[in-house]
Amino acid sequence: MTISNTPQWLQTANTKRRLRDDLIQAFVETHKAHSEVRIPPISAKDSQIDDAKLLHLVGTGTTKGNAQDPLAIDSVEEILQAILSGVVTASQLLNAYIHRQTGTSPLTEVLFDNAIQQANELDEYFQNNGRLVGPLHGVPMTLKDQFDVQGYDSTLGYVGRAFKPATRDCALVSLLKEMGAIIVAKSNLPQSIMWCETENPLWGLTVHPRNPAFTPGGSTGGEGTLLSLRGTVIGWGTDIGAYNTRLPYRGVSVSTEGQEHVPSVIGPMTRNIESLIAVTKAVIERSPWDRDPKCCPVPWRPEIFEQARSRPLVVAVMRDDGVVRPHPPVTRVLEEVVAKLEKAGHEVVSWTPGSLHKECIEIMDQYYTADGGEDIQRDVEAGGEPFIPHVEVLVNRGKPISVYNYWQLNKQKIAAQERYLDLWNASKSPTGKQIDILLTPVMPHSAVPHRKCRWVGYTKVFNFVDYPAVVLPAGHVSKELDADAAQSMDSYQPRNAIDEWNWNVFDLEKMDGMPIGVQVVARRLQEEKALGAAQAIDKILRGSVEP
Amino acid sequence: MTISNTPQWLQTANTKRRLRDDLIQAFVETHKAHSEVRIPPISAKDSQIDDAKLLHLVGTGTTKGNAQDPLAIDSVEEILQAILSGVVTASQLLNAYIHRQTGTSPLTEVLFDNAIQQANELDEYFQNNGRLVGPLHGVPMTLKDQFDVQGYDSTLGYVGRAFKPATRDCALVSLLKEMGAIIVAKSNLPQSIMWCETENPLWGLTVHPRNPAFTPGGSTGGEGTLLSLRGTVIGWGTDIGAYNTRLPYRGVSVSTEGQEHVPSVIGPMTRNIESLIAVTKAVIERSPWDRDPKCCPVPWRPEIFEQARSRPLVVAVMRDDGVVRPHPPVTRVLEEVVAKLEKAGHEVVSWTPGSLHKECIEIMDQYYTADGGEDIQRDVEAGGEPFIPHVEVLVNRGKPISVYNYWQLNKQKIAAQERYLDLWNASKSPTGKQIDILLTPVMPHSAVPHRKCRWVGYTKVFNFVDYPAVVLPAGHVSKELDADAAQSMDSYQPRNAIDEWNWNVFDLEKMDGMPIGVQVVARRLQEEKALGAAQAIDKILRGSVEP
Repeated sequence: MTISNTPQWLQTANTKRRLRDDLIQAFVETHKAHSEVRIPPISAKDSQIDDAKLLHLVGTGTTKGNAQDPLAIDSVEEILQAILSGVVTASQLLNAYIHRQTGTSPLTEVLFDNAIQQANELDEYFQNNGRLVGPLHGVPMTLKDQFDVQGYDSTLGYVGRAFKPATRDCALVSLLKEMGAIIVAKSNLPQSIMWCETENPLWGLTVHPRNPAFTPGGSTGGEGTLLSLRGTVIGWGTDIGAYNTRLPYRGVSVSTEGQEHVPSVIGPMTRNIESLIAVTKAVIERSPWDRDPKCCPVPWRPEIFEQARSRPLVVAVMRDDGVVRPHPPVTRVLEEVVAKLEKAGHEVVSWTPGSLHKECIEIMDQYYTADGGEDIQRDVEAGGEPFIPHVEVLVNRGKPISVYNYWQLNKQKIAAQERYLDLWNASKSPTGKQIDILLTPVMPHSAVPHRKCRWVGYTKVFNFVDYPAVVLPAGHVSKELDADAAQSMDSYQPRNAIDEWNWNVFDLEKMDGMPIGVQVVARRLQEEKALGAAQAIDKILRGSVEP
Repeated sequence: MTISNTPQWLQTANTKRRLRDDLIQAFVETHKAHSEVRIPPISAKDSQIDDAKLLHLVGTGTTKGNAQDPLAIDSVEEILQAILSGVVTASQLLNAYIHRQTGTSPLTEVLFDNAIQQANELDEYFQNNGRLVGPLHGVPMTLKDQFDVQGYDSTLGYVGRAFKPATRDCALVSLLKEMGAIIVAKSNLPQSIMWCETENPLWGLTVHPRNPAFTPGGSTGGEGTLLSLRGTVIGWGTDIGAYNTRLPYRGVSVSTEGQEHVPSVIGPMTRNIESLIAVTKAVIERSPWDRDPKCCPVPWRPEIFEQARSRPLVVAVMRDDGVVRPHPPVTRVLEEVVAKLEKAGHEVVSWTPGSLHKECIEIMDQYYTADGGEDIQRDVEAGGEPFIPHVEVLVNRGKPISVYNYWQLNKQKIAAQERYLDLWNASKSPTGKQIDILLTPVMPHSAVPHRKCRWVGYTKVFNFVDYPAVVLPAGHVSKELDADAAQSMDSYQPRNAIDEWNWNVFDLEKMDGMPIGVQVVARRLQEEKALGAAQAIDKILRGSVEP
């Protein structure tokens, strides 16, 4: 019998982490001598890594990668082509991706052995049959630690959920495996999930690949980091929440499970828009609604997608949500995108939500703690670990409300969704055309230091109204380009406490070089439109389409 | 100042009823002398009215009605053809329908003047333009008293909601009017809505058109009665509840509003399957999701409809839900349908839900009073009227649960929906084909005496799992045909209290001649399949298709 002063929760956490590290180490040892693809692992601790260095380390980073060079393979289509043409095997490719994962911090469950076996089987199938098993043959994928994979934990970052392996694959994982995808690992997420900082007592803190003092955000921060480090091709995340989903949720665990009014949904994250389209289409074409009753039985509609990516769009631009004013670099990047869109022949109109975004967020925030924090409290108490401070604040935010008042909240929600739809319908181009998509900032800032992330209203409002959104990389913070605008904000009078916080967090010097995205939003269940428009915009931004 | 011993709620109810009666009387007086279409009003008090007499009074009652005879017009298509060919005007037709309403009990709000004006405008439009305004031009419709119509109350049967006219039309009513439909009146519903007996202190009791001692059922009992008496072509009702709906709910009031887990949905009721298809298709083709964010943006899919109504189907038959065994006439009629389907070349397989239906209903029932009855209590207290006894029982059924437990209930609901989907997927024909539809009884009995309706599990389970269902008339109780089977049940040992109640309510003598339906269920959002299959089955039952 061992007597220890270490509390039980920490012993559990230490054991989990050691098992993870051992599995990673075992892979490194085995493959040290005969790694088919020699790629130095990229450490998340490599601070201030720049794009050039990153690309040098991991390949060209473009979707036009040279299929002769496995290091350059960076999209679903390139993988399929490379395997089909015999340039690389699924096993070789997998090795490269695992290598890139081994130095990173966000891993939780390590499925390397399982993945290697799967890759071998895929290679054998291809050798014997001369064709791929499906549209995701050999594509390495990773999962936020909520998706059930048989035999592995879905910890959600809770100690109490450690060593409780899932008894079956979730619907998504079964679909993906049937189509040839390889699940390589699972990744870190916030305690309670409901936060934009990827940290919990079980797995620790996940840091930004460019600067360990910064957060990669969240709640799917582990996947974001893996993607940035090219440790995966598709990272599966979740977001709260939207009712009507095209992708299967069955078998995915979540905190405040059963809160079905702004419920959690899943979504893929990729390194390029082509992979995002390919994987979304592949999953939808597999009829996920046949396995998950929450999944909306709407087949992939190629005509909507094709139209959105080929014809001139009417784009509504929301520069400011009326609550938190974006930092100057965010505004500059958005304006650059607008200018390029107009130059390319798209019609752009301004969109001002008045107080509607604020009202939506205020309603939405009441859901998460309508139970008085009981759900999160129970999970934390089951493991005995300490609260992360902001989670404790969340849990203690208020008393539970009654079911009757919960129903009144739902009425408010529906009324707000109706107002949002009316606003969308009322938004027309000068020539009277209905708007196609809404273009907005993703966050009011670029990446921020740890525990400084607070306002996710620019994205979560679209969960609330249930509209699909695609986020695209669009630019970077620039000391040079943003200096003047930053200075002109010196006398800015914040509108409210969150706006003030956002302004205080702005630090052009430290944020210099951090990536900035834009968000493309379409109406409910118009995933094809969001993806098609995003691809059109992405092409303009990458310069591969002449205006 | 008037001093009265009559309680305030009853004064309000008396005023509402008198206003209704005055409006009806005014119409009768005005049109007595010069009614274009002379049809004796049918009183709901005409007890034991038989099919032959009903048809004699109101027309042929078939969809093949002679367009030369306006009395025979009985479907959307016939109306459009009759107006187009000049046989009848919208105004003439409306008069006929209003006349049939004037002697009936289920009316609440009377919109005759409004409707007559609308009909005149339609006639004028047709005269001037030579074409119809839309696919529902001149079709008289009625609404359960939940649908907002500008300037009229939506009482829900609550005294406290009287004299509070809606400020705008609900989404459905706007759509319908744009397509040329005429809203003639609104009709009665149960106090609390959540019951199968159409009775409330404001409007009183609605009785079965064949026997005033019997209930027409509910909660859309007013519309059922109007349809039976041919007082309307389309009756709009609601049911609790399914999340994914193709039809717009916006602007429809309901009790326990905000209870969004088995929420209320709307649906049309008609006198024949052709009208049901026509109106469903018309509304969906009007893109109702552009106005109502709760409405699923799935367009009408003609290919699913055409396939379902033209090719051999795999039909799963559920003879018994495992909770309440149907009365012998219900079983006989279902078996007759099965025999005809097999003869017509459809494949029939048996479906036994085990304990799954019971479990679904047990979960579902917890939702309605999760607030401890507060919502209904508040509405009743606002008006001061007495409780209908069974509503009082419902309201006092239990204490409110916590939001945390409400979320646990949601988890149970989703798990049950998943099991239901698994059962459906596992059901195959002997040749290995997936089932197309499920065929079940509608109720475990035909019509029953007032306050004797209790088990609506055969229909509401499909609200719970969110599958569309169509109910078709399929036969009648028959003293002759059902006597032997009834006698053989003398020694039947009921399974449980509700089963025992159902058996005790069986009275072959009194039920003789009462109609019996069958229910056609398709998978989620497969309205086209449910309607197509229902039409194929209806044709076989009507004998218009040779096997």
